[in-house]
Amino acid sequence: MSIPNQTGTNQQWGGRFAEGPSAIMQAINASIGFDAKMWRQDIRGSLAHAAMLAHVGIISSEDEAAIQKGLADIAAEIEAGRFEWSEALEDVHMNIEARLTDRIGEAGKRLHTARSRNDQVATDFRLWVRDAIDGLAAQQLELIRVFVRRAEEHAGTIMPGYTHLQPAQPTTFGHHLLAYAEMLWRDRGRMLDARARLNECPLGSAAMCGTGFPIDRHATAKALGFDAPTRNSLDGVGSRDFAMEFLAACAICATHLSRLAEEIVIWTNPAFGFVTLPDNLTTGSSIMPQKRNPDAAELVRGKTGRINGALVGLLTVVKGLALTYAKDLQEDKEGVFDAAESLTLCLAATAAMVRDMQPNIPRMAAAAGAGFSTATDLADWLVRELKLPFRDAHHVTGRLVSKAEGMGVDLSGLTIMEMREIEPRIHEGVFGVLSPSASVASRRSHGGTAPDNVRAMAREWQERLG
Amino acid sequence: MSIPNQTGTNQQWGGRFAEGPSAIMQAINASIGFDAKMWRQDIRGSLAHAAMLAHVGIISSEDEAAIQKGLADIAAEIEAGRFEWSEALEDVHMNIEARLTDRIGEAGKRLHTARSRNDQVATDFRLWVRDAIDGLAAQQLELIRVFVRRAEEHAGTIMPGYTHLQPAQPTTFGHHLLAYAEMLWRDRGRMLDARARLNECPLGSAAMCGTGFPIDRHATAKALGFDAPTRNSLDGVGSRDFAMEFLAACAICATHLSRLAEEIVIWTNPAFGFVTLPDNLTTGSSIMPQKRNPDAAELVRGKTGRINGALVGLLTVVKGLALTYAKDLQEDKEGVFDAAESLTLCLAATAAMVRDMQPNIPRMAAAAGAGFSTATDLADWLVRELKLPFRDAHHVTGRLVSKAEGMGVDLSGLTIMEMREIEPRIHEGVFGVLSPSASVASRRSHGGTAPDNVRAMAREWQERLG
Amino acid sequence: MSIPNQTGTNQQWGGRFAEGPSAIMQAINASIGFDAKMWRQDIRGSLAHAAMLAHVGIISSEDEAAIQKGLADIAAEIEAGRFEWSEALEDVHMNIEARLTDRIGEAGKRLHTARSRNDQVATDFRLWVRDAIDGLAAQQLELIRVFVRRAEEHAGTIMPGYTHLQPAQPTTFGHHLLAYAEMLWRDRGRMLDARARLNECPLGSAAMCGTGFPIDRHATAKALGFDAPTRNSLDGVGSRDFAMEFLAACAICATHLSRLAEEIVIWTNPAFGFVTLPDNLTTGSSIMPQKRNPDAAELVRGKTGRINGALVGLLTVVKGLALTYAKDLQEDKEGVFDAAESLTLCLAATAAMVRDMQPNIPRMAAAAGAGFSTATDLADWLVRELKLPFRDAHHVTGRLVSKAEGMGVDLSGLTIMEMREIEPRIHEGVFGVLSPSASVASRRSHGGTAPDNVRAMAREWQERLG
Amino acid sequence: MSIPNQTGTNQQWGGRFAEGPSAIMQAINASIGFDAKMWRQDIRGSLAHAAMLAHVGIISSEDEAAIQKGLADIAAEIEAGRFEWSEALEDVHMNIEARLTDRIGEAGKRLHTARSRNDQVATDFRLWVRDAIDGLAAQQLELIRVFVRRAEEHAGTIMPGYTHLQPAQPTTFGHHLLAYAEMLWRDRGRMLDARARLNECPLGSAAMCGTGFPIDRHATAKALGFDAPTRNSLDGVGSRDFAMEFLAACAICATHLSRLAEEIVIWTNPAFGFVTLPDNLTTGSSIMPQKRNPDAAELVRGKTGRINGALVGLLTVVKGLALTYAKDLQEDKEGVFDAAESLTLCLAATAAMVRDMQPNIPRMAAAAGAGFSTATDLADWLVRELKLPFRDAHHVTGRLVSKAEGMGVDLSGLTIMEMREIEPRIHEGVFGVLSPSASVASRRSHGGTAPDNVRAMAREWQERLG
Repeated sequence: MSIPNQTGTNQQWGGRFAEGPSAIMQAINASIGFDAKMWRQDIRGSLAHAAMLAHVGIISSEDEAAIQKGLADIAAEIEAGRFEWSEALEDVHMNIEARLTDRIGEAGKRLHTARSRNDQVATDFRLWVRDAIDGLAAQQLELIRVFVRRAEEHAGTIMPGYTHLQPAQPTTFGHHLLAYAEMLWRDRGRMLDARARLNECPLGSAAMCGTGFPIDRHATAKALGFDAPTRNSLDGVGSRDFAMEFLAACAICATHLSRLAEEIVIWTNPAFGFVTLPDNLTTGSSIMPQKRNPDAAELVRGKTGRINGALVGLLTVVKGLALTYAKDLQEDKEGVFDAAESLTLCLAATAAMVRDMQPNIPRMAAAAGAGFSTATDLADWLVRELKLPFRDAHHVTGRLVSKAEGMGVDLSGLTIMEMREIEPRIHEGVFGVLSPSASVASRRSHGGTAPDNVRAMAREWQERLG
Repeated sequence: MSIPNQTGTNQQWGGRFAEGPSAIMQAINASIGFDAKMWRQDIRGSLAHAAMLAHVGIISSEDEAAIQKGLADIAAEIEAGRFEWSEALEDVHMNIEARLTDRIGEAGKRLHTARSRNDQVATDFRLWVRDAIDGLAAQQLELIRVFVRRAEEHAGTIMPGYTHLQPAQPTTFGHHLLAYAEMLWRDRGRMLDARARLNECPLGSAAMCGTGFPIDRHATAKALGFDAPTRNSLDGVGSRDFAMEFLAACAICATHLSRLAEEIVIWTNPAFGFVTLPDNLTTGSSIMPQKRNPDAAELVRGKTGRINGALVGLLTVVKGLALTYAKDLQEDKEGVFDAAESLTLCLAATAAMVRDMQPNIPRMAAAAGAGFSTATDLADWLVRELKLPFRDAHHVTGRLVSKAEGMGVDLSGLTIMEMREIEPRIHEGVFGVLSPSASVASRRSHGGTAPDNVRAMAREWQERLG
Repeated sequence: MSIPNQTGTNQQWGGRFAEGPSAIMQAINASIGFDAKMWRQDIRGSLAHAAMLAHVGIISSEDEAAIQKGLADIAAEIEAGRFEWSEALEDVHMNIEARLTDRIGEAGKRLHTARSRNDQVATDFRLWVRDAIDGLAAQQLELIRVFVRRAEEHAGTIMPGYTHLQPAQPTTFGHHLLAYAEMLWRDRGRMLDARARLNECPLGSAAMCGTGFPIDRHATAKALGFDAPTRNSLDGVGSRDFAMEFLAACAICATHLSRLAEEIVIWTNPAFGFVTLPDNLTTGSSIMPQKRNPDAAELVRGKTGRINGALVGLLTVVKGLALTYAKDLQEDKEGVFDAAESLTLCLAATAAMVRDMQPNIPRMAAAAGAGFSTATDLADWLVRELKLPFRDAHHVTGRLVSKAEGMGVDLSGLTIMEMREIEPRIHEGVFGVLSPSASVASRRSHGGTAPDNVRAMAREWQERLG
Repeated sequence: MSIPNQTGTNQQWGGRFAEGPSAIMQAINASIGFDAKMWRQDIRGSLAHAAMLAHVGIISSEDEAAIQKGLADIAAEIEAGRFEWSEALEDVHMNIEARLTDRIGEAGKRLHTARSRNDQVATDFRLWVRDAIDGLAAQQLELIRVFVRRAEEHAGTIMPGYTHLQPAQPTTFGHHLLAYAEMLWRDRGRMLDARARLNECPLGSAAMCGTGFPIDRHATAKALGFDAPTRNSLDGVGSRDFAMEFLAACAICATHLSRLAEEIVIWTNPAFGFVTLPDNLTTGSSIMPQKRNPDAAELVRGKTGRINGALVGLLTVVKGLALTYAKDLQEDKEGVFDAAESLTLCLAATAAMVRDMQPNIPRMAAAAGAGFSTATDLADWLVRELKLPFRDAHHVTGRLVSKAEGMGVDLSGLTIMEMREIEPRIHEGVFGVLSPSASVASRRSHGGTAPDNVRAMAREWQERLG
């Protein structure tokens, strides 16, 4: 493992720029340190371009064959770690093109006909983002599957439902997990919408104005899996909204994951003790064997920051930028690469946590029953069964809760007689809603927390997910 | 016009909180100062809820009629500016409900059955965002129409195409404007995707767990124009990704508008003099009658900031927030309202500028012809016509440009004889690509800048826009 | 209370712009809706300018007297709510100047000599930010006082110290509160540094280049409490870093407050039950009398978002803006006003919560003692007293914890004999570090959690605060 | 140059996590990939800690000597690129400690006495940021020197002064450059204030509560160049406001640089042609020898984005984080490292551009004289010389400009007779303010653009800079 030195002393700070403008320009211009990540996309793009050039007769089929062979060899070199990336050649495109010409001569020089670095990089970057979306969307789907599986398992596991982090009503662990399935489903939808929108091919926009060569942009678009070529060459090379939209989709998904991560951090605190994470997702202490730090959850929560930062970064870069290409746009990639990688890790870590965490059912149930958490159920029962107006029902409920509190019992600890002192029409049926289990069972409205609802919803999800 | 005083002196700063916690909590809790904007949505939601309650028999049809009448009267009062909003009643929901009970008595008290403030506000806010999207998408469409109309008009108006704000190739004003039509079309797509995704109705999620009342959530969803009710009650009251996605769509669109705004600021500087804005979109000076400050463009550019800020604000608020509702979420609205209003203004201002700006055709043409801007055309011609390899063609072009530069003429100022000194096979056909007009005419590839392409694309847009 | 209508229907969205460019420009240009907040600063600035003009002989002393009288009358009108702000006059400066000329005639027209709107607004805005800093810094100081007072009171109140929100070591409530005193002290330092840096007066920079009138900028600077006039007129009218720095100072302070707010939300959850907030800082439920939602804490936590957003907004606005003044800069104020007001509220709410919250000492103590929280004390004791190497001490501690865990007792529940089975040299002295109270008492290093340290530090703070 | 492969195909995306939680945790926990940058700081911290331990008698002087020798050897290894960093050892601290124990045995194990990873990383990171500040502040000073040198050289070089990017008044190139000297001076002040505030040493805070060992925190603080030890151990390990403040200072400075970068991009466009950048700070085209893309300026402008993003990232991470240390805080470093490195590059590139750019004096002068740019000078002259009230002077000026415009001449092209037709008292003295050079010469107010002022200010700067 090799890590570049960093001086960090005053004399040396910025020292590499002391030699003057050339060192500065090299630092500014060389993007190979990060854009080499796009080598697969670059080779795919060049193969499609060469095939099209041959098809329309701009290059010969011999040239095309030589290019194909040369690029395949280069791919193998890179794959095997034998490719020598050169900073002098600035970026992934020039590195590969130079190597191609090394290997196959003249034919390599003809590959760049009717193409420019501007449309090449725009194409490669779209392909990379599209690949990232495909990978992330698959992870999101897998995470939803995990939520659904655990939700079905815990459709009847009662836990407190919180507003303001204060117990409000009993709910179930399964219902809680399915809330995240909904969020992730929309997160995946945002990824897929971004994919559909970016899926137009800028290749053939050339430097910015298109070209006079008789190229077939529909052919290259199709070969690369795009729905169509872009319709305006200036837009093709100069726009980056696809990257901003991708980053926004990442940021929103990360925000959702951060909410669950926060809950896991709270749930694993011993005062809650709602869930236990497996050893391999926590860190401990050599002397405090019971200490289980939820590092995975904390990192998921924390990584939201860098993804938000990447989004702000690109929005800042493009703000007020005159068309078409400007060097500022070279700043588009690192944030996207980092956000994609961070979100991948967050999705994987969340799936592992949800899959393997063990709920402590008795502790959840005990917390769910405390604090008169079924008071709203009682009030609703008074409206439903005794036809009390809503406000009167609330008044009666408040008095019953006060009475129970004064006696040091829960609502279900009051006898019918005691209740009738406050509202004479109350009958035994009331006990059907006063326990947490009765409470959750009664909430059968569409999307409600009743265990039967949760089980049905889990099955509906399984059908949706296929 | 009434503007609250602001002290701004040390003694008085924060003075209103000196009276203690009650003043603080009032400042924290009262949202009526901004959520009154949602009164239409609140009334629509209540009408749908009442109709459903009556339909399933939870309230009587007499109650429903009274509620309808009462809410219609309240709407009229608000419309007429006669409604007395009360800060003591905290928010738009309580203001309207309290007034309803004032007017119609008991029936008003029954309206809140099987509903909670949590699902009510979630529903109102979705309706507001949906309305905003509809308005903004319509403005985006109108702006695209303006771009297309001006593009058709100026399909043949030659201007310099820039990379790095340096002249690179000649393009046309029409082609440039159509680049923005593409961006705005995607911006509109983002709005519509956000609309489709948010179009599920949280009403009936109640406080967080659903309800035991036999409500018909599909009915209220349908009545309010939603595609379906939301499927999980915790998600229904606790999620705000629809607002984040909306803000991201606003921020990306504003960023696009900021690019054109920057160009307009540059184009109206006298050194460029490419376009003139009408008087009513500029400000001047009483003593410098020729000064025309492009205020409208500057504001469009500047307002990107507050929209980005609103997006960051909401992402920050929701990061790490445990389910379900927390008071933090009250911070979701002001940023959304402000961003929607800012983007509305930016779209209107941009449409007005594009509609009314007058290009200075000769100045654009002169700038397009300067600087050997057709050098790439020459190189391409050498490849295409003389079959020179790409790299050799570049070499020859470089020598020809140097020769012209030395002679103080443009490329088209060289004679055939002079050219043949460098490459003997050059023939008269070369002049077909050396002028800006020949250059643009030659770039006929799909999406290229050739005037015929631009005209065809403008017609294609007109068909798409209907 | 009057709230403008908002249509929110498709037909009406953006409808106010249908009448064309004039309506758009009015919406763009009028800043009176927000900059009226600066009326005190505007009048102070004009008084200083008039005095200087008279002093150097540009206006007569009669004119000066008339201006003084006129401005004083206008201030009284505004104070009394009798001033009629006009949107047609665009901003606070023109509103006041026009009213002045109404009242005093010719002299009013001479006030604007050797001054421009550009330096006037730059001066007013600096004065406003300076006033805001003074107010906020005073609130920060008061909040520190509250921390110190409660810390002294609870110097010996033991609570769990968390890393990863997992119990790590016992600490004291007082020590915890003093951690925030440190943060707020630095937050205040940032405010004061920003104040010192912005305290130069741009008045006299005129439109951008200074003026040929023989003005005395040092005099106006001094009259307005500035340390000096700014040294470059272009910088004076075109820079807004003072506002960015102020926003950054607000954002960092708000972030600190959000940490404590999060803790209060967690501490008031019944599973923790560490503190109780007073009724007037929580909200409840008519039917759940025990429910105490920590709204004040949640709002403090949530408002971080809008302050971060304001900072991002202004950074975005100024990014890439050519000198000097551009209309984009009109976007500088609303975010600053809102951030200042939000932070004021957050500081007041935090001070009220810290002042009035009641710790539940037994629950904190119980939580502090659980989970072998003194294991590090034991290991340190083995190093210190028995001279075991650090790593060996850790090994022995781990074995003792395992033994205790197996026996179902805490570390202090082991007898000396039981301990000596693992390390024979352990003696009775060990019990001096095994209880939470012994643990905290032992941590006497500078800045450590020992109650004596905390008390001494509280006294040190009291001296510092005077 | 070695670049890790990145698959980017669906099957492989996230593939490295397929093996399960261990791979995920390794990716989450290992920070060695970035924190190795802090190796110098880590070694300095350990040397100071060891010396203190020996001084107070916790370790022997033999141990101290062994540790000193061992750490010196390790530093040499790292410097020489021979150190083998191990991901299994997670971070820079464990890598160095493990290597030390390899080399010197038992003594190495005693180094960690009375220290924890929490206070160690907090100390290292503060040292790193302090070093970065020292380097950046030195670069800022050097850049100011460059501004001052060029300003003195061009104190009399007239150029147009813009508001709204429209010519407003003539100014000088020197005055314009000194505006940036002012901004950079404040930027440096922010760095130095941040340095002063962070310069307290958290070492000795141990895990979070301090320690019972008789350590001397004042000694380690002094040895490491800190002003004092931090005063609260929880704050010492859990706060990161020093990093946020540093990032804010970077973001504001980058914003200033982006403004000049934007101006350079505009100035080098041929329509302006105000300055020429040297070859080694631009990129060209093999076929367009006259094309000079201002890449360096564009990158400076663009890199503002990532610095703003780093600031937002850290603000997001810390928002709502309960004390003290949480794994989220591991996200604090990469953004800081990247921002520091980006700003270093931006400062170096800006200094190189300003040092080497060549102004085109005639083009600047011509642009400065166009557009009645001395109209305000004329109005001021009428007030000053003829005692016209300000508003009347404006009226007369407007009429004179209109007359000149109608005649197709500039203001100085009107004869005295022609002027007197509008205002009979005008005399020859008026020509003293009508040319750009007269205009700038007249603006002698403090901070005004008069060349004499600029020269004096440049000298004042030279004295300040020493």
